[in-house]
Amino acid sequence: MQDRSTSDIETLIDLMAKLPGMGPRSARRAVLHLIRKRALLLTPLSDMMTRVATTARECLNCGNVGTEDICEICDSEARANGEICVVESVSDLWAMERAGVFKGRYHVLGGTLSALDAIGPEDLRIPRLVDRVGSEAVSEVILALNATIDGQTTAHYIADQLSGQVKLTSLAQGVPIGGELDYLDDGTISAALKARKEL
Amino acid sequence: MQDRSTSDIETLIDLMAKLPGMGPRSARRAVLHLIRKRALLLTPLSDMMTRVATTARECLNCGNVGTEDICEICDSEARANGEICVVESVSDLWAMERAGVFKGRYHVLGGTLSALDAIGPEDLRIPRLVDRVGSEAVSEVILALNATIDGQTTAHYIADQLSGQVKLTSLAQGVPIGGELDYLDDGTISAALKARKEL
Repeated sequence: MQDRSTSDIETLIDLMAKLPGMGPRSARRAVLHLIRKRALLLTPLSDMMTRVATTARECLNCGNVGTEDICEICDSEARANGEICVVESVSDLWAMERAGVFKGRYHVLGGTLSALDAIGPEDLRIPRLVDRVGSEAVSEVILALNATIDGQTTAHYIADQLSGQVKLTSLAQGVPIGGELDYLDDGTISAALKARKEL
Repeated sequence: MQDRSTSDIETLIDLMAKLPGMGPRSARRAVLHLIRKRALLLTPLSDMMTRVATTARECLNCGNVGTEDICEICDSEARANGEICVVESVSDLWAMERAGVFKGRYHVLGGTLSALDAIGPEDLRIPRLVDRVGSEAVSEVILALNATIDGQTTAHYIADQLSGQVKLTSLAQGVPIGGELDYLDDGTISAALKARKEL
């Protein structure tokens, strides 16, 4: 290892290994791949990283990541339908957008309430959500938080804060599309049974 | 998706997804992580990629990847012990270096002979290896090719080319350290039995 310990390539491998889902082995493989595909991949990737490092910012209104102070969704008049979908993270927002059915705007909390990690409502853009419900013409707040304990605790807290001011809904719980009962946990099956629908 | 389809962030995700071991999902996760850790990770990573894109080159002597025309191993007098270790790829060279026992120099073929893919000796730096054996003071050539059919075919071809000129050896085959017989293939077990050693 001493032969390349101080080289740029070694430093690049160490940095790549810090990405989520990468380890030292996959980082070495990725860097060799990048060096082989210099013109096709390495140069465009480094240019784009430099650009994103300068331009990426959080939307001041909803917390989405974009290249403007107000993100494209908040900026689009077409999406001002009075619905706000509350999600934990930007990746959840992107997952909702991929589904392509929600036509309103978002509010990204940036995490969940957690007594253990000392994360309170102020750390989570919850006051900003309450402001938005007061100032924008909001008819419905959809709580699309993860079906984890922390996610549901946070949903209950937000529901408390907003109760009486606006219509509050949450995502349905049940059997996922393509899901097999045999592989589902008890909680999902009992939730799906309780929320059964007449055909 | 239309909301970020043309953005720099989307382009960056598409580029990241082309790395080996990455897909669209892990690329999205990596890019969000990069944006969150802008000063600590994104900026250093883009800077280092730009540097490597300019400086990385193949060693003219052995084919190793480095930042000079002649790599540090070929440049080091301490490693001129007359041994050349022939490997398929730079990642194999790095694996040998991590083991830290080989003190000689390398020769990176850049692949294996393959009739199917029309890869012949000229495509593989094999003529350069024959040159080196003639011109450098080489006492032993260690064939450290992968124990695959293509790797072994290539090893046989190189052994033919160099026979009589230099001492030729190959890596021992047998049970890997920590290996359990129950999980080993038949070929490995029979190779290990044939090459058994007296205690």
